[in-house]
Amino acid sequence: MDPLVIFTPSGKRGRFPQGTPILTAARQLGVDLDSVCGGRGICSKCQITPSYGEFSKHGVTVAENALSDWNAVEERYSQKRGLKTGRRLGCQATVQGDVVIDVPPESQVHKQVVRKAAAVREITMDPATRLFYVEVAEPDMHEPAGDLERLQDALAEQWKINTEALRVDLPVLAKLQPALRKGNWAVTVALHQGHADMHERILDIWPGYWEGRLYGLAIDLGSTTIAAHLCDLRNGEVVASAGVMNPQIRFGEDLMSRVSYAMMNPGGDAEMTSAVREAINTLAVDIATEGKIEASQIVEAVFVCNPVMHHLLLGIDPVELGQAPFALATSNSLSLDAHELALDAINPAARVFILPCIAGHVGADAAAVALSEEPNNSKDLVLVVDVGTNAEILLGNRYKVLACSSPTGPAFEGAQISSGQRAAPGAIERVEIDPETKEPRFKVIGSELWSTEDGFAEATAVTGITGICGSGIIEAVAEMRAAGIVDASGLIGSAVQTGTARCIPEGRTHAYVLHDGSAEGGPVISVTQGDIRAIQLAKSALYAGARLLMDEIGTDTVDRVVLAGAFGAHISPKHAMILGMIPDCPLDKVTSAGNAAGTGARIALCNRAARAGIEKTVREITKVETAIEPRFQEHFVAATALPNSAEPFAKLRATVALPEPSYGKVGDGARPRRRRRS
Amino acid sequence: MDPLVIFTPSGKRGRFPQGTPILTAARQLGVDLDSVCGGRGICSKCQITPSYGEFSKHGVTVAENALSDWNAVEERYSQKRGLKTGRRLGCQATVQGDVVIDVPPESQVHKQVVRKAAAVREITMDPATRLFYVEVAEPDMHEPAGDLERLQDALAEQWKINTEALRVDLPVLAKLQPALRKGNWAVTVALHQGHADMHERILDIWPGYWEGRLYGLAIDLGSTTIAAHLCDLRNGEVVASAGVMNPQIRFGEDLMSRVSYAMMNPGGDAEMTSAVREAINTLAVDIATEGKIEASQIVEAVFVCNPVMHHLLLGIDPVELGQAPFALATSNSLSLDAHELALDAINPAARVFILPCIAGHVGADAAAVALSEEPNNSKDLVLVVDVGTNAEILLGNRYKVLACSSPTGPAFEGAQISSGQRAAPGAIERVEIDPETKEPRFKVIGSELWSTEDGFAEATAVTGITGICGSGIIEAVAEMRAAGIVDASGLIGSAVQTGTARCIPEGRTHAYVLHDGSAEGGPVISVTQGDIRAIQLAKSALYAGARLLMDEIGTDTVDRVVLAGAFGAHISPKHAMILGMIPDCPLDKVTSAGNAAGTGARIALCNRAARAGIEKTVREITKVETAIEPRFQEHFVAATALPNSAEPFAKLRATVALPEPSYGKVGDGARPRRRRRS
Repeated sequence: MDPLVIFTPSGKRGRFPQGTPILTAARQLGVDLDSVCGGRGICSKCQITPSYGEFSKHGVTVAENALSDWNAVEERYSQKRGLKTGRRLGCQATVQGDVVIDVPPESQVHKQVVRKAAAVREITMDPATRLFYVEVAEPDMHEPAGDLERLQDALAEQWKINTEALRVDLPVLAKLQPALRKGNWAVTVALHQGHADMHERILDIWPGYWEGRLYGLAIDLGSTTIAAHLCDLRNGEVVASAGVMNPQIRFGEDLMSRVSYAMMNPGGDAEMTSAVREAINTLAVDIATEGKIEASQIVEAVFVCNPVMHHLLLGIDPVELGQAPFALATSNSLSLDAHELALDAINPAARVFILPCIAGHVGADAAAVALSEEPNNSKDLVLVVDVGTNAEILLGNRYKVLACSSPTGPAFEGAQISSGQRAAPGAIERVEIDPETKEPRFKVIGSELWSTEDGFAEATAVTGITGICGSGIIEAVAEMRAAGIVDASGLIGSAVQTGTARCIPEGRTHAYVLHDGSAEGGPVISVTQGDIRAIQLAKSALYAGARLLMDEIGTDTVDRVVLAGAFGAHISPKHAMILGMIPDCPLDKVTSAGNAAGTGARIALCNRAARAGIEKTVREITKVETAIEPRFQEHFVAATALPNSAEPFAKLRATVALPEPSYGKVGDGARPRRRRRS
Repeated sequence: MDPLVIFTPSGKRGRFPQGTPILTAARQLGVDLDSVCGGRGICSKCQITPSYGEFSKHGVTVAENALSDWNAVEERYSQKRGLKTGRRLGCQATVQGDVVIDVPPESQVHKQVVRKAAAVREITMDPATRLFYVEVAEPDMHEPAGDLERLQDALAEQWKINTEALRVDLPVLAKLQPALRKGNWAVTVALHQGHADMHERILDIWPGYWEGRLYGLAIDLGSTTIAAHLCDLRNGEVVASAGVMNPQIRFGEDLMSRVSYAMMNPGGDAEMTSAVREAINTLAVDIATEGKIEASQIVEAVFVCNPVMHHLLLGIDPVELGQAPFALATSNSLSLDAHELALDAINPAARVFILPCIAGHVGADAAAVALSEEPNNSKDLVLVVDVGTNAEILLGNRYKVLACSSPTGPAFEGAQISSGQRAAPGAIERVEIDPETKEPRFKVIGSELWSTEDGFAEATAVTGITGICGSGIIEAVAEMRAAGIVDASGLIGSAVQTGTARCIPEGRTHAYVLHDGSAEGGPVISVTQGDIRAIQLAKSALYAGARLLMDEIGTDTVDRVVLAGAFGAHISPKHAMILGMIPDCPLDKVTSAGNAAGTGARIALCNRAARAGIEKTVREITKVETAIEPRFQEHFVAATALPNSAEPFAKLRATVALPEPSYGKVGDGARPRRRRRS
């Protein structure tokens, strides 16, 4: 009987004639063992570790001579590059007797990559573009097929790749003949294998065996910032990250003002398209420099963005997104050539994948959040909130997922707040107010100290205390409410009513002074009645969106809440709940997912099945349009109050016996009006 | 029983319920009845002619009321645009009783177009790109699919088109939303449906029903000239033709010198690529102007060219084509975007099809000749010779086809001939020499008169008599041979030997004076010994190529000969045979196919099945490489003599009893050396 070969960790096994290379055995059994050179002892990607001795579990005994002797190819490789002790090259070592072979993670094509930021899930590596080494038949005047056609045949034969509909851009084709001759009829190709209905494409070509690596960009194209991760397409590793401001800001801070700019200015959309494409090119060059690679090694890019950014990136006038029925020009995912987006900084043949949009207000960024957080695979009912100028909200479980977006406005990002600023050094980001003394303490970005701690003044001397950022204003308002400085309707009490001189008159209303820096020539940072109203508007929009989805699914409670988004990650769950931003839920069931959209982009970059998967998921998501739902308006109005029922609120209030304050009738303009979406 | 509907000329028949529109009946039976608007009474492409009365052949009687009454839609159309008497709109007229319906040719999608130039075959219209009118569902906030996705659904539903892998370039996508709204949710799209493995693509889009037409360019990209036909993609009609010189001539007259230019000058190939692409753009604009259409209505282009032109058009360095083994970068046909070739004068989304190359010396032009002349469908053994600087030679029948190219050099085109010139007014194109008096008469391009006829001097006064073109030199040499002025070895006799003072000494050899224009200040036009040698070289290369294929197939005779090529069309078969350019064959079996390569391009433009067909044909052709066949060299040497065995020669010589002359030994350099291919 032929020797038995057992692979771990897969457990796959089979019998093979003596002399069969381990790589061949692995391929025949469908074991995930990598190889770029196709078993020619060049690439060393097929390293394996044989185990010797008794394996009662497998019922085999592996003799010392179960594999062929260490050979010259292995010796040369080991001397040149080093090979870990116990490792063999799978293409060189051949079966001699029963053997147990371990495939280490780095030799697996479809290796699992633990996500850095939030290790709740792993990414299985299955990138669309991989390197293949091929040996091509020399030209024959009697069978005068072209060099490309012989390369196609070689790829089909040596890699079992269907090359019938293979595409090669002309500039890449122009490289083929010199590469084949320089490589002595062997080349390494970067082959893109798309998902359903996509042609295979050769994106680049190098003479002989090419030692280099391929990279991809995962780009989160936001209204305000463009953030990119440079990923090694072999192992998913993030080798560099970079971000730039979205230069479209000069055409309008928020989405609606950019849509208006396009409506008002002929060619305005094209201006914004050029601006953002140029910024992405610059970003690509910067990140390649940071990652110490050639920009031409970047052969893939994945974009996630909201619908307006999506259309402007594609060069489509976003005017329809500014008015009902908010029709997208296209909602499906897109697979494009980089040059279609004028992304000429990266490899000219690079492929771009853009995630699908869920609806006119729920973009590819929300799809990416769904890909990252997988509410569709959740056993319990999960609410995922991606907080930004627009909040994307997903609610569901493995039976059903709903999605909507809600126009929260920029207040959560510190905009439209009297002392508001972007999250930058000097900004107040954490706030606590003593319920008895009504005295605040706070932290600013750039220092770990509370303002009441020794050394705080020194620690903040350089940055100063310049304003209050999004997470800071949320905590401030929540703490003011918890301390009784603000009543349920959102009114700030007077110094007399609240018992603190920090409540000062401001016009016909009051403001609470958080920090008076005037003595040191700094600003007075206070929370005004207007600020409270802005936060009330924002939080009630967010809450109303979540509530609307809960109505649709028929529930009053959710099992858990995930706060996503670069900003969402900094929100204190306790304060969000005191404010009533999110529905009530046990505090320990509120988690932060960090930049879930960016993570979704990375997943789509590293795993092509995820691309087809998210298409399907998005099609199955039930879309809810807040703009036309009367109940949204009802929930919105009902949600403007600052409740006192939330779990953390109740705990807080239990520690100090405060009466429920009431600081007067709701005045003019206090009834929140619906803000136009932006 | 339901009424019987019989369609002519197809003879298809079936029973349909009363009230069924004729268009519906036609579709269900698979009758070829056109419609762009899908039966909405807009496009009027579905015109039909009902016949009334007894039809014993069909066994039916058609009553006057067999169709529904003339309706308002037909009346409106008839008043607005006119409708021929007896015509009805197939989408409006409904079945009421048994009826016979004739589908006129202009209402057939797959109409047959009789070829203008050489009406040996018909082109069946089945262009890759056609117009479709579609009505698209309005956007719905509850089902927020993008406009493109709803258009896809509409195309699939209304036209049964598989749109799953539909592609739309971004600039076309950007036109979609405004077009849908302007067209009140109806658009006309130019849809490209490729052959196997190609995505469907929307190339352009117009609001509502668009009245315009789509056009295609059939381009014959030659080393010397670029010729284009502008074809209406609906009916195949050539609406304009234009040609320009290939600007690459400034880099070298023949192919080999262009390859050398690329080898010697870094970036030289790119220079030549830009030059030819620019010329094609200019040509496209000119031909659109001539055809009175917008260049953006040109949505397809088909190219045929030799391998060097092919590579330079694609932007591929042709260096490998200049040396054995003459490896093509790619041999298969190519389907490209026009912008890949920088053809930005035509529709930016236009598609380009380039025919496959047969071998390193046998290009897409030869493939086009094969498509046009179909040797693979011939019952008898046919030799197709496309005469040019390189001759492409095809030999075969429906069982087997062989192909080779032969480096004839430019002598046949009047180059390298002492008085040679391009075929232009003033050039001698026809020659006769009286076998007894040895006096010539000739015709020049631009006049129908022989030089011996009255009025010839006046008729040629403007152009003058400037030289001798390719067909002229062939006739001159053949006539000189037939008249005994030249012997079998190709030597010109002296005045004494030949008995005519027109034979004058020239160096160590003689020349025959065809025309002495010196009295009028014009040139002396003579045929020199060098000219005879050049023609001998060219004709023996051509003959040797044909002979080599005959050897391969195992025959000494062919059933018929087709002379193809712009120049081939002007060659006198009789003189070609006297010269021994082509194998012996009954004179009435030698025909001219005109510009067969250009015709092949038009066929590929108008019929997408032809594109797949020529791929298959080319794969099945047996390629013979003359450069490495020792027998080619043998045939070449053996063929340098000017035979006296050919049928027309024998006939000619029978009329005058001339002895077989011999004018001395073959001198230095007279043994033809193989010219480097060019």
